[in-house]
Amino acid sequence: MNRLYLDWNATTPLRAEARTAMMAAMDRVGNPSSVHAEGRNAKMAMEHAREGVAQALGADGADVIFTSGATEAAAMVLAHRDLACAAIEHDAVKAWCREILPVSAQGLVRVDDPSRASLQLANSETGVIQSLPAGLAVSDLTQAFGKIPLAFNWLGVEAGFVSAHKLGGPKGVGALILKKGTDLQAMIRGGGQEQGRRAGTENLIGIAGFAAAAQAAQRDLEAGLWEMVAERRDAFEARLMDRRPDVVIAGKDAPRLPNTTCILTSGWKGETQVMQMDLAGYAVSAGSACSSGKVRASGVLQAMGFDDKQAQSAIRISISPALADDQMNRFADAWETAYSRWRDRNG
Amino acid sequence: MNRLYLDWNATTPLRAEARTAMMAAMDRVGNPSSVHAEGRNAKMAMEHAREGVAQALGADGADVIFTSGATEAAAMVLAHRDLACAAIEHDAVKAWCREILPVSAQGLVRVDDPSRASLQLANSETGVIQSLPAGLAVSDLTQAFGKIPLAFNWLGVEAGFVSAHKLGGPKGVGALILKKGTDLQAMIRGGGQEQGRRAGTENLIGIAGFAAAAQAAQRDLEAGLWEMVAERRDAFEARLMDRRPDVVIAGKDAPRLPNTTCILTSGWKGETQVMQMDLAGYAVSAGSACSSGKVRASGVLQAMGFDDKQAQSAIRISISPALADDQMNRFADAWETAYSRWRDRNG
Repeated sequence: MNRLYLDWNATTPLRAEARTAMMAAMDRVGNPSSVHAEGRNAKMAMEHAREGVAQALGADGADVIFTSGATEAAAMVLAHRDLACAAIEHDAVKAWCREILPVSAQGLVRVDDPSRASLQLANSETGVIQSLPAGLAVSDLTQAFGKIPLAFNWLGVEAGFVSAHKLGGPKGVGALILKKGTDLQAMIRGGGQEQGRRAGTENLIGIAGFAAAAQAAQRDLEAGLWEMVAERRDAFEARLMDRRPDVVIAGKDAPRLPNTTCILTSGWKGETQVMQMDLAGYAVSAGSACSSGKVRASGVLQAMGFDDKQAQSAIRISISPALADDQMNRFADAWETAYSRWRDRNG
Repeated sequence: MNRLYLDWNATTPLRAEARTAMMAAMDRVGNPSSVHAEGRNAKMAMEHAREGVAQALGADGADVIFTSGATEAAAMVLAHRDLACAAIEHDAVKAWCREILPVSAQGLVRVDDPSRASLQLANSETGVIQSLPAGLAVSDLTQAFGKIPLAFNWLGVEAGFVSAHKLGGPKGVGALILKKGTDLQAMIRGGGQEQGRRAGTENLIGIAGFAAAAQAAQRDLEAGLWEMVAERRDAFEARLMDRRPDVVIAGKDAPRLPNTTCILTSGWKGETQVMQMDLAGYAVSAGSACSSGKVRASGVLQAMGFDDKQAQSAIRISISPALADDQMNRFADAWETAYSRWRDRNG
């Protein structure tokens, strides 16, 4: 039996469009900073990719700075600014901000001074989508980009960041998006690349894959693919609530990403579930991939008011547009059976 | 007539071995930080690549931290340490160091306190190779790696850094190498990747290409390929000196990379030469790619005592192992003809 990959929010397989673009980029000789023909061709391909990413992000006219991923972009725009954030942010944001913003039981964050705050658009663990206040300093758009309609120019934020590998692009490439002309001191220095905001020869192959994936993701969104994902996810949750009314789905009453379900039982450790499901052929996760491996309760769920025991029981199911209904049911059967067994043993 | 790419020190075409490894990596699903089978497979492939890079670098047992390139690695190990360096270092090093170390007319640097200094192993513009003092804090190994035999564990340095795209790997990936267990605070934070020293999901496809390229480069070195490059370069220089005794080759009497020639005339602007040669079908450079585009004299050559006019006249020829003798002669003909024309017009 084939394995089922239900960990789409951790990373996605490479899209065919990205692969094709990357293979074409492999044939390109030349450093985009070189002035000769080879260099200029490399530069042109990179600027074409930049336009593609800007377009997919609804960020035409904004500054798109290519980075090695969302984590680097977060550091570039957040380090040493002491912005306010909530405990539900990704560690890459929390590393630089004060975790002081209040979080509701549904995972929604209240921001009093948007110009001094960082707020994610969507949460990786629960899928909860925030309504961003106008004038927000920074927003982590990583999980939202490619899963819900999104236009940077309409969000009213000063800066956002994204990662290619969450929407079918390669790992290790992302972008920082800034309102045109925003001042930014480079963190990585010693070269004039990226308008002097990020030194170092650019990851041309990865950037080509990123742009192709972002544009393909945009087409999928426009074609309504993710609405079907939401229907499938909703059916899965309805079945679960029907058969197992004792489980809790975190953030269920808030707007959420179409593909994400965060399930809490009381006491069945998430880490144990991940391992059991893995052996049974299902890839799911407990918390975000970046913090997994550590056995600790999810800070996201604790911020929403769940106690340690509940928070430690969380698993995240994040599905892909390619998943079929019968596959989703196959997983539901497997998980419910395992849960019943655990309940039988633990009363 | 085919173009000739004589700008190997700026960047190299992707090696076949790297391409194959990258295509295999494209099929790998999974985030290396995930605990399920897909994640573990990704992690295993990455650790295999890490061993490959360590082996090619003669750095078994040292810590190899993957980065987005040499520039990022330089910032990680140099920022806010105020180490001493010479003006011949790459801008990515000079951005963080005090340029106080003396440079000889042949481009050699004297270091009094190695534990507080950064010194490159080879210069990108002249190819001059330094003899690194024991106990050196940091060394930029970027240009040397893959062109001359090199074993990190025998260099006696605390930290070094390299880039994949200088030896046939992809752009946008590199490594910081540290003596085992060296303390290092992460610059990019918010994830446990790379032993907590560099957060962010790793560039798996690029890393696979890097390892394959590094190992292939190592095999080339062992097979004596670069000794033939040196012979070809030396023949080119001998011909040049014979026909044009008025030109100067920077660092000619110092140990140099086998593939690099830095030619100075007095007065013929390097930028002009680059454009003229480009139109004639030859990619060469004036200064390093990262600073090209700016019309300014090379800081490297000024540090060696050349005046502004001489320094501004420099062009760098950096050849590949694949270059044939007749191709080298074809370039020499073209350059000498253009130079004669310039001389005729400018006396």
